[in-house]
Amino acid sequence: MNNFQYQNPTKILFGKGQIASLDKELPRDANILLLYGGGSIKRNGIYEQVTATLGDRKVVEFGGIPANPEYAKLMEALKVIRELDITYILAVGGGSVIDGAKFLSAAARYTGDDPWKILTDNISVKEGLPFATVLTLPATGSEMNSGSVITRAETKEKLAMGGPGLFPVFSILDPEVIHSIPQRQLANGITDAFTHVLEQYMTYPTGALLQDRLAESILQTLIEVAPKVLEDPTDYTAASNFMWSCTMALNGLISKGVPTDWAVHAMGHELTALYGIDHARTLAIVAPSHYTYNFEAKREKLAQYGERVWNITEGSTEERARAAIVRTEDFFHQLGIDTKLSDYTDDYEGTGEEVARRFTERGWKGLGEHRSLTPSDAEQIVKMAY
Amino acid sequence: MNNFQYQNPTKILFGKGQIASLDKELPRDANILLLYGGGSIKRNGIYEQVTATLGDRKVVEFGGIPANPEYAKLMEALKVIRELDITYILAVGGGSVIDGAKFLSAAARYTGDDPWKILTDNISVKEGLPFATVLTLPATGSEMNSGSVITRAETKEKLAMGGPGLFPVFSILDPEVIHSIPQRQLANGITDAFTHVLEQYMTYPTGALLQDRLAESILQTLIEVAPKVLEDPTDYTAASNFMWSCTMALNGLISKGVPTDWAVHAMGHELTALYGIDHARTLAIVAPSHYTYNFEAKREKLAQYGERVWNITEGSTEERARAAIVRTEDFFHQLGIDTKLSDYTDDYEGTGEEVARRFTERGWKGLGEHRSLTPSDAEQIVKMAY
Repeated sequence: MNNFQYQNPTKILFGKGQIASLDKELPRDANILLLYGGGSIKRNGIYEQVTATLGDRKVVEFGGIPANPEYAKLMEALKVIRELDITYILAVGGGSVIDGAKFLSAAARYTGDDPWKILTDNISVKEGLPFATVLTLPATGSEMNSGSVITRAETKEKLAMGGPGLFPVFSILDPEVIHSIPQRQLANGITDAFTHVLEQYMTYPTGALLQDRLAESILQTLIEVAPKVLEDPTDYTAASNFMWSCTMALNGLISKGVPTDWAVHAMGHELTALYGIDHARTLAIVAPSHYTYNFEAKREKLAQYGERVWNITEGSTEERARAAIVRTEDFFHQLGIDTKLSDYTDDYEGTGEEVARRFTERGWKGLGEHRSLTPSDAEQIVKMAY
Repeated sequence: MNNFQYQNPTKILFGKGQIASLDKELPRDANILLLYGGGSIKRNGIYEQVTATLGDRKVVEFGGIPANPEYAKLMEALKVIRELDITYILAVGGGSVIDGAKFLSAAARYTGDDPWKILTDNISVKEGLPFATVLTLPATGSEMNSGSVITRAETKEKLAMGGPGLFPVFSILDPEVIHSIPQRQLANGITDAFTHVLEQYMTYPTGALLQDRLAESILQTLIEVAPKVLEDPTDYTAASNFMWSCTMALNGLISKGVPTDWAVHAMGHELTALYGIDHARTLAIVAPSHYTYNFEAKREKLAQYGERVWNITEGSTEERARAAIVRTEDFFHQLGIDTKLSDYTDDYEGTGEEVARRFTERGWKGLGEHRSLTPSDAEQIVKMAY
């Protein structure tokens, strides 16, 4: 087990009816920016539930945060925060809205001239404007971590930021919010959370026996509930385990003491940038090829995963490891997620080269748990995913 | 899954050499009370490691906190805190020293006339004097929770306290500290952590699929590392997983969304009070009888535990559940822990009645996950453990 530090101060309020807790959790004298996305919260009743609990607090609404939270839009929100002396951000939405709130939390307290530098200069944010979340789409885990990814259309950049000051003060997780989520987004959420776990688990053994089992627990739970979530989002047992699994998949706990990969995300981000493919779907495209390409390095963990998560007990280590990749791809298919780039675009020729070119251009230092994958490796992996 | 709230702000610094982090984590201007137990830290080198990092901070030592932290002794420490304007407590020890630090943290900020009322009046402590811990004995999980149990010899009372203000600011978990722990205490630590998980898991199914698997992960890890920890405490993989499992067993996570039992602890405490048997050993005495006595209510979970944790796949639900109890008792035996009261005392006749009498005298409201066990049930359970 590697040395680690772990701290996660976010308060979680989980379960049916928890949105009503907002009144108790939010400071009475808060001057609130209510941040949300494309307006689905006004159609599914969540907006009414939220505003009903805010009482006579001062609330300014700011909607329209897009699926990949866009810098230009967020700068408009920042202007509102500054002009109206906002003291608290309440993000009601999925990962994009919450990631946007994290940028705003940091930018509101940033004293430099250009808030974009928070991202380009890799500033670790020690203190931000307080913010809380009401999660409406289980997937990213952003509701219980301090990381954020912001997109800037103008420069075609998608950059990460974070810091110990960017944990939500509290997050409300009511599994009943998934009732109105379209199948496509439910499948994306399951795939996203599943891949988050794989990125922190599918590396090499380091004697982190407990962490391995915790990661496997989340994978097993997602596999168990996935068909039920898709078949009937009102199945509360399925919905609640889906939601809590998504949060636990990326709240920092399972990555402590182990190496992490995150190469699937790095390559996936480029496919989103190039073709606008849903983030989760790019992960399902890249992951099987990535594990096949890096088979030798990941063989032991692949076999362990096959045995413990997929009950593959027959065959050699190599055979169990190979079978585990097949089962993973089958799982994505069962969710209705296609796993080849050619399923999404006819214009895939040259994508491997383009991804490699982009990585090279940025002076990429190496991907994966050994930071050893080169742009040329990424090219091969993406080509395997055509 | 039941509704729940979860928040745990304690910062964990885990791994080899982490004691040196004290210098960075402790405020420079802190006026520190260094709290410890019987002095083993002066024999095993931990005292030197700790004091070497404290630099020129003002430090007052207070040793001698006994195995069940004693109120009278703690009141002496409280006097020191008040007289010397202590601003920070550093607890170096196991669960007893850390529990003692929690009482002192609360008492130092308590404005009433008699600090014992913090326990008798069940005061939820919102804010205490800041304190941190260096864990020297994995077992109780006190290093990452906000609960404490204090003993008062004068009145033969052993009472619990806690509150959101009683989480350690940070805790240092260096698995190498177990090198010098006697076998008896290592076996106790494993048994204590294992039973902590059972108390939060061995109830009835509530559709908390993820929590069940997380609990099972800790049990599986403890079973895997237990023989290695006892055979060679310098086996770092075994030591680190043992230590992290003990913390994860009682940091609040696995109890969220599920019913909890804690009847084994309630009965066990009485056996410690009556015969001075080590806390962990009383749990091993009571648990098998408790699960046998409450077999019908716990059958489903016992069978699930047997199947997933002990790989008992043959037989009916009832047979797997019965076999799981046998395997649990065998596990304790393999740790060198006797599981019958008569293994510890010849004077056991009448113990069941005495435990029942004590519960009745206190106006007991019912034990177990249904709060339905009566003093008479406890009497039968204890008698089954003779």
